[in-house]
Amino acid sequence: MTGESVGVGVIGAGFISEYHLAGLAAAGGANVRILMGRTPARVQALAGRFNIPNVTSDYRAVLDRRDVDAVIVATPDDTHEEIAVAAAAAGKAVLLQKPMACSSAGCRRIIAAARKAGIHLQVSFMHRYFEEVIRLSELLKTDKLGPVFAVRIRNATPGPDWQDWFFSRERVGGGVVLQLGVHGIDLCRHLFGDILAVGARVALQRTDRILADGRTVRPDNEDHALALYRFRDGQLGSHEMSLSEVHGCDRFRLEIYCADATLWLRTEKGLLAVYAPELTGSRGWFIPDLPSPPLGQRQHAHWLDVVRGRVPSDRTAEDGLATLLVAEAIYRSAANGREEQVENAAPT
Amino acid sequence: MTGESVGVGVIGAGFISEYHLAGLAAAGGANVRILMGRTPARVQALAGRFNIPNVTSDYRAVLDRRDVDAVIVATPDDTHEEIAVAAAAAGKAVLLQKPMACSSAGCRRIIAAARKAGIHLQVSFMHRYFEEVIRLSELLKTDKLGPVFAVRIRNATPGPDWQDWFFSRERVGGGVVLQLGVHGIDLCRHLFGDILAVGARVALQRTDRILADGRTVRPDNEDHALALYRFRDGQLGSHEMSLSEVHGCDRFRLEIYCADATLWLRTEKGLLAVYAPELTGSRGWFIPDLPSPPLGQRQHAHWLDVVRGRVPSDRTAEDGLATLLVAEAIYRSAANGREEQVENAAPT
Amino acid sequence: MTGESVGVGVIGAGFISEYHLAGLAAAGGANVRILMGRTPARVQALAGRFNIPNVTSDYRAVLDRRDVDAVIVATPDDTHEEIAVAAAAAGKAVLLQKPMACSSAGCRRIIAAARKAGIHLQVSFMHRYFEEVIRLSELLKTDKLGPVFAVRIRNATPGPDWQDWFFSRERVGGGVVLQLGVHGIDLCRHLFGDILAVGARVALQRTDRILADGRTVRPDNEDHALALYRFRDGQLGSHEMSLSEVHGCDRFRLEIYCADATLWLRTEKGLLAVYAPELTGSRGWFIPDLPSPPLGQRQHAHWLDVVRGRVPSDRTAEDGLATLLVAEAIYRSAANGREEQVENAAPT
Amino acid sequence: MTGESVGVGVIGAGFISEYHLAGLAAAGGANVRILMGRTPARVQALAGRFNIPNVTSDYRAVLDRRDVDAVIVATPDDTHEEIAVAAAAAGKAVLLQKPMACSSAGCRRIIAAARKAGIHLQVSFMHRYFEEVIRLSELLKTDKLGPVFAVRIRNATPGPDWQDWFFSRERVGGGVVLQLGVHGIDLCRHLFGDILAVGARVALQRTDRILADGRTVRPDNEDHALALYRFRDGQLGSHEMSLSEVHGCDRFRLEIYCADATLWLRTEKGLLAVYAPELTGSRGWFIPDLPSPPLGQRQHAHWLDVVRGRVPSDRTAEDGLATLLVAEAIYRSAANGREEQVENAAPT
Repeated sequence: MTGESVGVGVIGAGFISEYHLAGLAAAGGANVRILMGRTPARVQALAGRFNIPNVTSDYRAVLDRRDVDAVIVATPDDTHEEIAVAAAAAGKAVLLQKPMACSSAGCRRIIAAARKAGIHLQVSFMHRYFEEVIRLSELLKTDKLGPVFAVRIRNATPGPDWQDWFFSRERVGGGVVLQLGVHGIDLCRHLFGDILAVGARVALQRTDRILADGRTVRPDNEDHALALYRFRDGQLGSHEMSLSEVHGCDRFRLEIYCADATLWLRTEKGLLAVYAPELTGSRGWFIPDLPSPPLGQRQHAHWLDVVRGRVPSDRTAEDGLATLLVAEAIYRSAANGREEQVENAAPT
Repeated sequence: MTGESVGVGVIGAGFISEYHLAGLAAAGGANVRILMGRTPARVQALAGRFNIPNVTSDYRAVLDRRDVDAVIVATPDDTHEEIAVAAAAAGKAVLLQKPMACSSAGCRRIIAAARKAGIHLQVSFMHRYFEEVIRLSELLKTDKLGPVFAVRIRNATPGPDWQDWFFSRERVGGGVVLQLGVHGIDLCRHLFGDILAVGARVALQRTDRILADGRTVRPDNEDHALALYRFRDGQLGSHEMSLSEVHGCDRFRLEIYCADATLWLRTEKGLLAVYAPELTGSRGWFIPDLPSPPLGQRQHAHWLDVVRGRVPSDRTAEDGLATLLVAEAIYRSAANGREEQVENAAPT
Repeated sequence: MTGESVGVGVIGAGFISEYHLAGLAAAGGANVRILMGRTPARVQALAGRFNIPNVTSDYRAVLDRRDVDAVIVATPDDTHEEIAVAAAAAGKAVLLQKPMACSSAGCRRIIAAARKAGIHLQVSFMHRYFEEVIRLSELLKTDKLGPVFAVRIRNATPGPDWQDWFFSRERVGGGVVLQLGVHGIDLCRHLFGDILAVGARVALQRTDRILADGRTVRPDNEDHALALYRFRDGQLGSHEMSLSEVHGCDRFRLEIYCADATLWLRTEKGLLAVYAPELTGSRGWFIPDLPSPPLGQRQHAHWLDVVRGRVPSDRTAEDGLATLLVAEAIYRSAANGREEQVENAAPT
Repeated sequence: MTGESVGVGVIGAGFISEYHLAGLAAAGGANVRILMGRTPARVQALAGRFNIPNVTSDYRAVLDRRDVDAVIVATPDDTHEEIAVAAAAAGKAVLLQKPMACSSAGCRRIIAAARKAGIHLQVSFMHRYFEEVIRLSELLKTDKLGPVFAVRIRNATPGPDWQDWFFSRERVGGGVVLQLGVHGIDLCRHLFGDILAVGARVALQRTDRILADGRTVRPDNEDHALALYRFRDGQLGSHEMSLSEVHGCDRFRLEIYCADATLWLRTEKGLLAVYAPELTGSRGWFIPDLPSPPLGQRQHAHWLDVVRGRVPSDRTAEDGLATLLVAEAIYRSAANGREEQVENAAPT
């Protein structure tokens, strides 16, 4: 760190790296020194757009740099563990793209490596930083909504068409649950606490995928999943995850049913819609105005503050592990037709 | 039947009887001879509004009348079986309010009684006759939507507050699954075919209910249920049922995800919203205009035609039984934490 | 009046008479003795549906009845004056369908006749009784909205296709301004006070009309009008009136812009949408739940109370005249391209 | 121009300059050499964000540069004429922020200077480049909508609070009509052709304005205007312009009523909503998916192509003048209470 500016290396030059680069630019306080990616044209273009002085195709070249204090790892899922462990060993703070790894065992190894190296390890759960989620989180802290009875969430997209590895169980460690569902799982845990038990079904609905480059892929991992959750405090939840919807929802749809309130996020009523007579004093829907800062600004400002030691480290690494444990319970339940307990994330 | 006008007796004078009386009036072709109800003031008022010449507090007085060809049974759930069996024995055509009975065994006994007496037995599933459902049903018959991948449905109300028997397992035979969920179960079966297996959780969320008359009731039956369905053709479904939502949805919300289309019923986009590029020729949502005939007209016109022998009897009695079998699978799954097979409705 | 029940005669058996008959039924307290209409089949059907014991094709037969205390006049516009004057002379209370008459001179003659006879004379402005209008009216009485800056209203339909007289200036006394615009004019005056000056343009857009019975009509009256209003308290208003929109709005759309609030009626946001940070305590849209009593119940209950002397007579007769004076100012302005003062409704 | 890259100077560093800088970046093909602004901190910040190597507080320093081929003028309205005339004399292509000048006479002088210098002169009407406007424009070229009957548009904001000059008639040359209304006037002319005659009212509703920096300003120019338009082809239009709405619309709301279609832009139904049975084959609203390129990309790509001579110059300079002529007709009509003819933009 030169003064207060954080030297950052970005490992991965795909779609999601743009989100991180734009977020860093909007947050301010970071100097992106180097960008790593496998496709030279893509890396060059992205480096040009964000004024990044160095590029490489080898992640080790990022870790070797002295002017890099922290790295963002946004590579295919099955490479997260190797890169994160190496980055920790190199003493770099790490922000890992979700899913943290392809298995809870991988997550635990990354956490162990970070502890050993004494570095800041975070997992990127972008949805937590959306304005409607932040406002909702504040509302849930009031005593005007009554207990939460039930949660209903949906993550759905038409599925990615720019890479083939998304459709390989080996590369992803699973299917839609790991690729997309982890967003919803984390959002639920973030807002409502631990998920104790899971009942689930998964399916492979689209047996052929045509990629943007014309190739046809035959997926071997699930593209649809339905899960029932039992939360720590007794709430019930249902979670639909899909990579096969022709239209796709806009990131997610979340419905929360409380004793004295109904709250909807990202529906036709708006980003946040609140029906809470105890709170608003009369019966009706309230659609609050929400600020609209640049995408990623809040998340990356927070992360940079963690890296600089200005705020305490958050527990997103442990949450990344806990999310995988829920995903693994989903797979077990889908396989054996039984409700499955979620394994405890706490270290044994 | 005098000429083509059907003599009808209505048994039950509650909220839902108004629906049937208004539907009969809008359909035309029926003469309501007598109304049975337990609360004299209520029965008189309703009889006055719909010009019904006779009232009684004993359902047998309805069945004894020669000028009554057909009866509508809209009494509390635990009386359906006795009255329907007696009506069949009296040779009356019967339209039974849902749920058909408090158990599949009860349903089977009613069906047997109707067969023996050779009378028309129907169960009232009003949602099938909503314009958006009829239009959807037509759309599903085109070949432009691709296979149905998943179904997501929700039935929710704040719960009834005008009677106490709704909150007694003994009187209802269950809770929200039997009172409200059977609408969604029938709608799903009607549109997508048999449900083969069920995974479910139920909960009692509101432990006290304050009725409109000031009394407090302590329910002993579930007011919330989540079910995962596996359909005959492989689709997955999730179904939320609630009597504890502070706001309540408008009858139901239904989302259908197909390979080439997304269809939403009764959402903020309108009664029916269609995203089906293969059908409409371009990418975008289409919100069709729908006719708005008087509520109940279509259903009761159809029923009167069945009673008069103008159209074949529909299979709603068998569907009423099949709906109970799904409900029973929900209760079994909720009790034992396993996916449960739905018992076959076919006679053994 | 026998006891407190009002004997009513309904003169006119068209579309709008159904509204009045349903409203009387929902309000209770009226006995409709006789229905007058020119088309026997239509009159019989309507009388059957609403259990009216007598029918006639001559309005004088209604006025001659002793058991008729009050009449509703819902005939073609150019007959209002003759019938209302005769009804007053016969001592009947009168509820006149809008527009009150084809000219302000006609309105004044009806008012004079009513005064002379000492009968209750009312004009039917149904929009005043809509729930969203009543709630809005209450909101406008709070001091949380700030002064009203501007009003924007639209009345539009595809135009009637069940009669030809709508498209004759002679029969209507004008065109869309008198047929449809008078609703909006009254609503504006009711909510915001007198309109002092008007600038307007009118047009005939559809030069051929195909009626439901297959006939083609060539209208000679305007089917589109735009008016700018200056209100008594300085607000500006714009009012679009159209009988030529292919889709049509649902009765009306009304937008109200205040210093501290924005209020929308009958838009996609719902029947009433309120943006009023001073009132709700935070920035956002509030969509209040509104009751949904049967259409017409409120209006006819109020009218029957006026007829029975239970509440003071409202000033809708004077308002009916004032509405015509605004309409006449619209026509003058459209003819001469100048802003026109609205003539004073007060008797000279 | 070095090769095909256009050397650009941006004159003005306010809110709207960000739009132009982001648009140039998204379009590609421009090198912004220098940024001129009066507030050093603001200029430095903006130059830093967009990597502009030079800054100045004197617009002549921009015009003096040889590496500047083209300038964007986004300064307060009353400086447009002086700067644009000087830029033309310096041989620079000019993109002028709307309103083009404070009067039609000023516009004519700028056009004359550009002609004399032989440079490309354009006026920036950003709304023309919105995706929904482009799609609408394509739809209007089909023969499936029937003739346009009427247009209804609204431009409204809470008003700017970051500068005082907006509230001075002398600095703006008018009020909301020139500041905001010119967007809607241009959009109407762009889509529906010349406006021939205008009837209008204007008002000053908020007599005090509190700026973001705490100062109170007492405006001397109108903040609300209502105009009725008569278009070349007979359509009627109404246009509301407001700087006093507490909430504000999102850029504009536009409703178009055709013989066979209704089209709405930027309403609750979405960016574009189409009711056009002749086009879509069935009755219902269609909400097309629209692309969402970066804001400004289309407009600036087009402008750079004009500057490079790749596409013919558009006629936005003449349109800028025509827009002022409509605005002046609005002011005349508001002053004298008469419909006013719009002066012809063609050179005499």
